[in-house]
Amino acid sequence: MTQIEVELGERSYRIDIGDGALGSSAAAFRSAGLSAGPVIVTNSRVWRLHGTSLAKALGRELAPRGVIRIGDGEGFKHLGTLQRIWQGLFRLDADRRSWILAFGGGVVGDIAGFAAATFQRGIAYVNVPTTLLAQVDSAVGGKVAINVPQGKNLIGAFHQPAAVVSDIRLLGTLPPRELASGLFEVVKCGAIRSEKLLSFIELELPRILSCRPAALERLVAESCRIKAAVVSSDEQEGGQRMILNYGHTVGHALEAATGYRRFRHGEAVAWGMIAAAGFARQLGMMTAAEARRLCSLLHRVRRLPSLKGVPVEAVWRALGRDKKFRAGEIRMVLLPELGSAEVVASIEPAQLKSYLDKFLAGGGAPLL
Amino acid sequence: MTQIEVELGERSYRIDIGDGALGSSAAAFRSAGLSAGPVIVTNSRVWRLHGTSLAKALGRELAPRGVIRIGDGEGFKHLGTLQRIWQGLFRLDADRRSWILAFGGGVVGDIAGFAAATFQRGIAYVNVPTTLLAQVDSAVGGKVAINVPQGKNLIGAFHQPAAVVSDIRLLGTLPPRELASGLFEVVKCGAIRSEKLLSFIELELPRILSCRPAALERLVAESCRIKAAVVSSDEQEGGQRMILNYGHTVGHALEAATGYRRFRHGEAVAWGMIAAAGFARQLGMMTAAEARRLCSLLHRVRRLPSLKGVPVEAVWRALGRDKKFRAGEIRMVLLPELGSAEVVASIEPAQLKSYLDKFLAGGGAPLL
Repeated sequence: MTQIEVELGERSYRIDIGDGALGSSAAAFRSAGLSAGPVIVTNSRVWRLHGTSLAKALGRELAPRGVIRIGDGEGFKHLGTLQRIWQGLFRLDADRRSWILAFGGGVVGDIAGFAAATFQRGIAYVNVPTTLLAQVDSAVGGKVAINVPQGKNLIGAFHQPAAVVSDIRLLGTLPPRELASGLFEVVKCGAIRSEKLLSFIELELPRILSCRPAALERLVAESCRIKAAVVSSDEQEGGQRMILNYGHTVGHALEAATGYRRFRHGEAVAWGMIAAAGFARQLGMMTAAEARRLCSLLHRVRRLPSLKGVPVEAVWRALGRDKKFRAGEIRMVLLPELGSAEVVASIEPAQLKSYLDKFLAGGGAPLL
Repeated sequence: MTQIEVELGERSYRIDIGDGALGSSAAAFRSAGLSAGPVIVTNSRVWRLHGTSLAKALGRELAPRGVIRIGDGEGFKHLGTLQRIWQGLFRLDADRRSWILAFGGGVVGDIAGFAAATFQRGIAYVNVPTTLLAQVDSAVGGKVAINVPQGKNLIGAFHQPAAVVSDIRLLGTLPPRELASGLFEVVKCGAIRSEKLLSFIELELPRILSCRPAALERLVAESCRIKAAVVSSDEQEGGQRMILNYGHTVGHALEAATGYRRFRHGEAVAWGMIAAAGFARQLGMMTAAEARRLCSLLHRVRRLPSLKGVPVEAVWRALGRDKKFRAGEIRMVLLPELGSAEVVASIEPAQLKSYLDKFLAGGGAPLL
């Protein structure tokens, strides 16, 4: 079992990571100061697969006050679902001392966390993420939100969990594509902060993809350590935290340009990292060997959905929705070398556009 | 001009209070680190009366990015209005560096503040309260919220403003009943923390009710100082902050039992304070002379709407909605003496009920 402290002053909390961590989660919640039973927010798939284990782990003392099931998938991360959670909390007679246990992937964590942030001006919540992506990414950092027609995560808050319990064993039921999608975010953590983590993934990839607990535990722990360090230094994304967006500028645009249907989030970020590596080369940053190493690892993780037919104009329009782009103040996270990231402020829009044209026309060849 | 610092670490802010304070508000906003024009959230009445003054005060440098008008009154403090504000912000192309200026009474401040708390995970806002109640109460403390069918303020957050500018001159257009409603909350501040403030009101009541600027400025300043001190010691209402709820236990129940129609909030709190004074006497707290002094001041402020026909069962039901009551853990703020408050934890429900029966049957005579 690995324990990581996320240092955020009075909002600090601990992440427990391990094979079977769920079994000792009740102790983790109690040591975070929580008592009585939580209101569980989950989706039907996760509850069917793992509900019994969770209920058993909570025991009699923390027996759930109730379970609120929401729809599965990004399409349900909207105001209507948030209202359903609020109503569920009222129905269950929750008060300011009640707490929420978010049990699911990123959607469950984000929306349950936002419900906790806003119910009676904020109640406690804990995260028990059940996907690799949520364990390494959305469960750390306190970003909670819903999507609105204007865009993803545009209504939300910063609300830190009281505790996070990441049970590696839950990842065994993940579809391979989901696992890979999370792994792309792990590669991102390595790319921006730890060349050693990249080496580990290169070496252990087969064991990781077949869900060997020891390999996954190390992977999740390293990613959380990196993310926790970045978040501790910049809780509300004033500067440093922006490096976590490596690959996300182009990644988000690819998702938006394809209506969030073609790519899983991690896959779009993987393409975004490949594009960023190529673009960094154009700017004379990063060696060709390092760029090649990163791209090759990403392609080894899993075959990415093709970029064929992604309209460059739609990508450019999606980028343009970012106001910084329109104002000509483009900032992008780029890597001077593997394991180290930099926010580059003086990007020329024309140069980026010309690169992306070629990148997409070439089907994602990074033009190193 | 009076300036009060609300000390809340990195969330500290300044309140400027004065006759014509609006005129120098642009400087106050700039010194709070705000630049470019705000999005103004207001209601049509306030905007018609004072919009021109505000626009003039903001000048060219802080010229509003846009104005979002919401309905006037507690009935509009709901999710639908919050969505309208969010949509207005998107329409005005607001981003994470945009800020909101809440220009109106408590409803505008609470809902505009909650919109600021949740738009893009939190943007800055300032409060320019236009009612006495908002200047002394809702503009200080960072409580922002909306009402839901289950009750008032049950969905919300703590989100501190970047600055508050309370212009006494704006109170000149308040209907007398609104002014009195705010004054009841000022009496509350005196009752829990400052016998001197009570003496001042007793002495200056005619000048206060005829809106003499010097008297009002002192009143608002003293109330803000008291509230700021309490809030600084307990930002999220763990303990000390609860004393601000003096008179609110019974007050809220009276409001709820009459469907929020018969009493203005301050009037219900005034009745609540009278009831609390009488109940304190029953428990052997407070001298009869002090209780009489408080009740007599409250009645001098303005004739309160009658309690006649308020069904005691409905009051009791409304109190019972508070879970602490149901669990038999009744806590109430009571005054050992004027200017000093105490949270009394061991209230007997039966004793309180029997007192309230008599209090209501007697038309609000406090039974000293």
